[in-house]
Amino acid sequence: MDKKALVSEIFQKKSYLCVGLDTDRSKLPAHLKEEKDGIIIFNKAIIEATKEYCVSYKINTAFYEARGLKGWEEMQETLSFIPKKHFTIADAKRGDIGNTSAQYAKTFFETLDFDSITVAPYMGEDSIRPFLDYENKVTIVLGLTSNKGANDFELQKMGDQFLYEKVLHTVSKWGNEDNLMFVVGATQAHELANIRKIIPQNFLLVPGVGAQGGSLQDVTHYGKNEEIGLLINSSRGIIYADNSENFANVAGEKAKELQQEMSVLFS
Amino acid sequence: MDKKALVSEIFQKKSYLCVGLDTDRSKLPAHLKEEKDGIIIFNKAIIEATKEYCVSYKINTAFYEARGLKGWEEMQETLSFIPKKHFTIADAKRGDIGNTSAQYAKTFFETLDFDSITVAPYMGEDSIRPFLDYENKVTIVLGLTSNKGANDFELQKMGDQFLYEKVLHTVSKWGNEDNLMFVVGATQAHELANIRKIIPQNFLLVPGVGAQGGSLQDVTHYGKNEEIGLLINSSRGIIYADNSENFANVAGEKAKELQQEMSVLFS
Repeated sequence: MDKKALVSEIFQKKSYLCVGLDTDRSKLPAHLKEEKDGIIIFNKAIIEATKEYCVSYKINTAFYEARGLKGWEEMQETLSFIPKKHFTIADAKRGDIGNTSAQYAKTFFETLDFDSITVAPYMGEDSIRPFLDYENKVTIVLGLTSNKGANDFELQKMGDQFLYEKVLHTVSKWGNEDNLMFVVGATQAHELANIRKIIPQNFLLVPGVGAQGGSLQDVTHYGKNEEIGLLINSSRGIIYADNSENFANVAGEKAKELQQEMSVLFS
Repeated sequence: MDKKALVSEIFQKKSYLCVGLDTDRSKLPAHLKEEKDGIIIFNKAIIEATKEYCVSYKINTAFYEARGLKGWEEMQETLSFIPKKHFTIADAKRGDIGNTSAQYAKTFFETLDFDSITVAPYMGEDSIRPFLDYENKVTIVLGLTSNKGANDFELQKMGDQFLYEKVLHTVSKWGNEDNLMFVVGATQAHELANIRKIIPQNFLLVPGVGAQGGSLQDVTHYGKNEEIGLLINSSRGIIYADNSENFANVAGEKAKELQQEMSVLFS
């Protein structure tokens, strides 16, 4: 699905929730840990329980790659369970010289049919261009991340602006509001007001609210635009909310809670 | 193998050549294009023909990922053909928040037993730390890349230095000369003199000489230190040097030529 269809789903469901499938075998409920297909059973149940309340699923590729061939198979199968009306994100943080980025674009847009992929900006335009060249696909470029390491480079001054601001300014000219989104971690939600001055129209993928980020209310207040323009991800807070055989129901309830908090922020 | 063993091999072989296995099915010699295991046959023959002249092999993961499950299998199998005395590099350009980078480190240092991996610096220390935490493994961080896009951010001024210089300064403190190398593309070889002032001891992985870079002589002159401290990669110039059934012999000859040019630069 493309960005237009995503916006339509957001308004229909009154939700801009993305569920992050960072599925780690060591964190599965006890009864699934020994199952050969534990990850598949887990992901399928999580998707079934949450799909009504979210508009997007984000697959963190690292957790699947770490299991080698078997993990790659599990990533493919998980992707096949996600309903077509949900926007799929390969959280892969790729980026390399042009002919190599073209291979990564092929990986995630053709071999695996993701709607979008996260990409690192360090190597500049020709490392991002091959992703943008795909029609009806979305490239999500790292802007300001929510980890401590953001202070090392992203929040260092380059001239009169932070590196991450320079990235938003520069990269936003390489694509448009339909094929380009940005990862923006809002540890302090009021930063989003400044970010919205630089990129008023692009969607922002926000890595999380609560513990590591601003409140849902503040992030929405400072970050939303007329299309909502936000995808707020929750991974561990939903998928590992409960460790019993009842895990999927609890995950569904957690997703529903977030959707209900979001629903009143649309007006 | 670790860096000490690499240095020993470099002096024994009088070579600091790395052969890049960016194997693309569409570029295989005609007689292998239709073979189900064309990539495996090709990589095995290239490794056999070049192993005497190089000290390292670099696998560009994008080219394997693009073929999905089959590609992942081919990457594993290719890795198994590389003799233990060659330093193996996963050219993967990964990097994410700490718990995700830990999964990538597991992928390339455990699931696949590479000696080293290339990593992007944008997200800062906690995105690189999980790689450095592995004993006897090497983390190769992007410094200055050789593509046009390097001008967009890497070669922009951050205070009184370029971003890439800030990266070299900062990241070099997170590790040591044994567990940390840097990718440095020398489009103008004299830049290496400046880079050597910032990081005199760390090995540099140089993406190529000739067409896109400085001459082998200049790169060596400005970049080498008492351990040589250079790995110079050649991918397409070796593996696609010939498109006939004789491809492996020609690849071997090309690798030998480079090794011979290198051998006279040791003194």
